Parts: sequence; C-alpha cells; structure tokens
Amino acid sequence: MSLRDEILEQPAAAERQLASSREVIAALVARLRARPVDLVVIAARGTSDHAAIYAQYMLGTVHRLPVALAAPSIVSLYGVVPRFARALVVGISQSGASPDIVGVVEAGRRQDVPTLAITNDPASPLAAAAEYVIDLAAGPEQAVAATKTYSTSLLAIARLSAALLDEPDSLAALERVPAAIERALAVEPEVEQIAAEMAAVDRCVVLGRGYEYATAREWALKLKELARVFADPYSAADFEHGPVALVEPGVPVLAVVPEGVASAGLVELLGRLRERGADVLALSDSAAIRASGRRSVSLPPDVPEWLRPIVTIVPAQLFAYHLTRARALDPEAPRNLAKVTRTR
Amino acid sequence: MSLRDEILEQPAAAERQLASSREVIAALVARLRARPVDLVVIAARGTSDHAAIYAQYMLGTVHRLPVALAAPSIVSLYGVVPRFARALVVGISQSGASPDIVGVVEAGRRQDVPTLAITNDPASPLAAAAEYVIDLAAGPEQAVAATKTYSTSLLAIARLSAALLDEPDSLAALERVPAAIERALAVEPEVEQIAAEMAAVDRCVVLGRGYEYATAREWALKLKELARVFADPYSAADFEHGPVALVEPGVPVLAVVPEGVASAGLVELLGRLRERGADVLALSDSAAIRASGRRSVSLPPDVPEWLRPIVTIVPAQLFAYHLTRARALDPEAPRNLAKVTRTR
Repeated sequence: MSLRDEILEQPAAAERQLASSREVIAALVARLRARPVDLVVIAARGTSDHAAIYAQYMLGTVHRLPVALAAPSIVSLYGVVPRFARALVVGISQSGASPDIVGVVEAGRRQDVPTLAITNDPASPLAAAAEYVIDLAAGPEQAVAATKTYSTSLLAIARLSAALLDEPDSLAALERVPAAIERALAVEPEVEQIAAEMAAVDRCVVLGRGYEYATAREWALKLKELARVFADPYSAADFEHGPVALVEPGVPVLAVVPEGVASAGLVELLGRLRERGADVLALSDSAAIRASGRRSVSLPPDVPEWLRPIVTIVPAQLFAYHLTRARALDPEAPRNLAKVTRTR
Repeated sequence: MSLRDEILEQPAAAERQLASSREVIAALVARLRARPVDLVVIAARGTSDHAAIYAQYMLGTVHRLPVALAAPSIVSLYGVVPRFARALVVGISQSGASPDIVGVVEAGRRQDVPTLAITNDPASPLAAAAEYVIDLAAGPEQAVAATKTYSTSLLAIARLSAALLDEPDSLAALERVPAAIERALAVEPEVEQIAAEMAAVDRCVVLGRGYEYATAREWALKLKELARVFADPYSAADFEHGPVALVEPGVPVLAVVPEGVASAGLVELLGRLRERGADVLALSDSAAIRASGRRSVSLPPDVPEWLRPIVTIVPAQLFAYHLTRARALDPEAPRNLAKVTRTR
C-alpha cells in the first residue's frame, strides 16, 4: 500500500482499533480503579511522541493526572532507572522495536507498577515487556511516514480516557470518530490545490495550542520527513517567547485552529502575524476563523475538542503528501529513513 | 548593558548566584528530606523551558525523580488543576510575570505541596506565589534575548541537586563553574570568525543528547530570535526518527558534543551526516571529536558532565550573537519581541 492509501484507510483502521482494544482497556481501567496512580510516565519518540503529547492534554485535562514525557536516554545512556512510585508507565511505538522505549517499560515492570504498551505489533519486544498491551490493529503500515498508526494511537488514548470516565456520552462519541475521519478526507482536492500553490515553500512555522499542539508537532514532522521542509512547530504561547522573531513578510504560517477555548488567542496572534506579512494557512471548522488565513482548509464540524486531534491530522497528512509530490519528491521514499528506527 | 556585555558578565552572575541561594536551597532540601516527593512538575516557557529540560536530566539521572514539564495551558486555558499528590512544583521565569506559569505554582501552593520559584525578580508574582524562591541574582538583564538568566537558572538547579546529594565533591565542583565559564568565553575570536563564514545560513539543525539536549534547544532558540535562522533542535535519537530526512548537501548541522556517555553515538551520527554532505560544526572538549566537524569550537576541558551545560551554552550564545551581526541584524532589537512575555 502507498502512503496515500494508508492515509485514506484511516477510517477503517479506526474501526479496527475500536473493535480490538475494549478488553485490555477494561482490564487496565479495573487495575487503575483498584490502585489509582498519581502520575503517568510515557516513553515515545518521533510520531509516537506526538501521541504522548495528546495523552498529556487528555489525561491532564480530563483526569487531572500529571504526565511526564520520559527522557528515554536517562535509562538507556545513563543507566539510571527512575523511581516510578505510583506511576502508570506507558511505551508508545508503532514497531515496538526501539530498545530505549522498551527499556523504560521494562524498568516499570520490574518495579511492579502498571505498564502499558501501545504498538502496532503485539509480538514486539515492547509488547512483551508490558503488562497491558493495546494492539493498534491499524494493519501493516508500509510507508515510512507513520499516519494510521498515529491516528489509532490517539484513538486508543482517547478510549482509555473515556473508559476511565465511564460516561456513556464519551463512549458513544468515540464510535463516531471513523465517520469524522471519513469527512475530513473529503478536503483532498482543495488541499492538493493549495499544496501545488505552495510548492516552493522550504521553511514554515506550524502553530497549534492545547489539544491541537500535538497536531502541530505531527504536521511539522510529516513536512520534514516527506517534503523536506524546515517546519518549526510551536504552541502559540511558546512561539511568543522567542521564535516569533522568525516571522517576516512571506513566511508561511500553518495554523491548526478549530473553534474552542484555545482559538481566540490563536486567532489574535494570527492577525498580528498577517500584519507582519506572514502567509497564513488556517485549518478550522469555523468559517470565521478560516477567514483569518490567506488560505484555509475546512475541518468537519461537531467533533468534540478531545477527539478532534484524531481528525485534524488527516488534512495535515494530505497536505504533506501533496506538497511532497508538488515538490517532485517521492513520498514513498523519504530520504535517510527506514521504517523501523532502533535508537538506544 | 548590551547583549554581548551580558554574555561576558556570566562568570560574575554565576558568582552572585552561588553567593545568594544557599539558604533557600538548604531550607527546601530540609523540607524534601522530611517529606520526600515522588515527582517534580516544572512550568516554564521559552529559554526557561530549556532550564526545565536540564532539570529533567539532572533530577532524573542523579535522584531518579520523574520530571514532568507541565503544559501550563491545562491550567490557564482549560481551567483544570492537576492533582499534584507528592510532587514538588517549580516555576521558572526570568521576569516571574507570565500568568500561565504563575497559575501552575499557585495551584501547587493551594494543594499544600512544596513550591519553588526560580526567577530573576524576587518581587514578581511568581515569587509571591511560591513557598521557596531562588533569586537568580543575575543582575538586571536588559537584552531581550536571555543569556545570564539561563546560565544562572541551570546553576541554581545544579546546586539544588548537589545540596540534595550533600556530597562534598559536588558542592566543590559548583564553585569552579564561574572560572569554567570564563575559560569558555575565550573562544570568542574563533567563534566570530566562524560566524562570519556562515553568515549566509538561514536554516540549520542543532543536535545534542542527554544533558546537552537542553543546550541544543537553547542554542536553536537564540539563533531564531537573534539571527532569524530556522534552527531546528533535536536530541540525536529523536532526530533519527524522522527529521534526518532534512539533511542534504550543504545543510549546516551544529552539534553540541562534549566527551561523555552520549558522545559515541552522536559522533557516529555526525559521520553519517557528513557522508550525506552536511556541513558540521562541532562544539567539544575533545580534539578527536572536534575532528568530526568541518568546523569546530573548543570547550574547556575537565568540567563534569552534570555542570557542563552551564558552560557549553556560552560559545553557543557568542555564536548566535556574532552570526546576528554577520547577518547585519541588530542583536539588541530582536524582531517582534519584548523582554517580558505575558502568555495565558
């Protein structure tokens, strides 16, 4: 399957994820109810690290849990095992093969804290290391750039959160995610057109905030690995603490800005950036917000904020794919990269 | 004082920091010994966020403490207060004025967990919110780009770690930091020459790993805010999970690579990047490692790994300053920026 096939397959992959992880999540939730945790430690790299950022907002906002994104090299380079105390230790890796991620989960297992692997390979070393294993069930991902393993990782995290809440509305909302992804895919023709217009772009800023910070990070990574664009992702707040100096006339600013608690401040920032000549592309479900960009892409309406990053990444993936082609690069063969990265 | 004056003032600022924070650190250490914490939550943005990354390695490696870098917007945007349980909550901000950072520390205070402010303004809202206050005592920082407040923040964190350990060798090593910074400043002529040669650079990759990941992040931020370079910082491991696709002939790769547990893997990576045509600038205390770059800058020898980031940032700051001038930009007036950033 090609990268585009895998992007388009995401509604089906999401259906498979929903069909596959119910039991393991129920078991983990029972464990967390019996012995609550004070902290979640997540080890992940690359695209999976962006799923970890989503988990930080999800578990922080809904469950008031502090989430520490582990520095895996503390274990792998310095040989030091954190004291996990009352933590849930999570490893996220599509291949489940990266020794540094496995090392963190193994350390949790030895301390007898609950451990969770989120992986597309239930036969991987990461899955073997963890007490609980969520099989992404995304199907084989052959393209080097991860797409469906990202959206299914987010869906698994959202489902864990909803199961912890045990609220019928939230559980029902999960079931509507595949259809929302399907609707998001419908923007492909307009995205292809915009990508063609922007083919000369070789650097840009990508902004998101709150739940959509993960989307900004993942979008920027796709732009780097596929389209070879120096894409610099920021939360809107961090951006104002320095990198805003990069904005000069003509600099492309890609903004993930669905309507919500984070949108007002981001729209205000985009207005100031446009005054300074930035070339803003806005992804939003709101026509009024889309008007804050010179170009815009519409997102499907009526997706709850906590599930929206699973949907907003889809037009971003399509944009990265079409920009890659518009730049006469091969999306199936990102430079210098292999599918499985084994860092230590 | 100009930016360069403030860079050159860092040995004196470090002396002032060492002279000022002994008592508050002793009080905090007594509190942490009486009632140990399981977790450190740090809220910070911009340059201060890089001090937080240093703290993540320092406290993780030496004290086995998980460190969560807070997403301040969970408090400020979503209005949700984390359950801090057995955490130490830290806010780092040179101005102490950013409401989102203050909000996290106030939330900790209300939960009666220990709270620490690290700030250059002991009369700031952040200092008022925290139970313990480390005054950086860096002296007024007038340049928009933070330099001496960064190195003194790192020194304060190192001192907290050393005081927790209560090991005479570590405490003595701290006293030698100002002299090591002084030696690091001696490279200015060679750094100025290299910056002049690289004046046309408008994008680059910055690599570091382990303790020096914070340096890579901070160096890249200085390059963005001062020299307007799209500088993309990565830990060497994360870099291999995607962004390595950006490397093509002529791309500048700036590497912070002092000899240590992280250096072998990074030197090997730099070798591969050079084969692909990358233009490598290596900062190292080892002549053998410096030879892995086309250009190199020497770091003072015999600085222990845990204190080295306080020293390695100095040539990086000088490089950013001289590159800014070489690019005919004004280092005293970064575009679009004010000294105090109040994000919510």
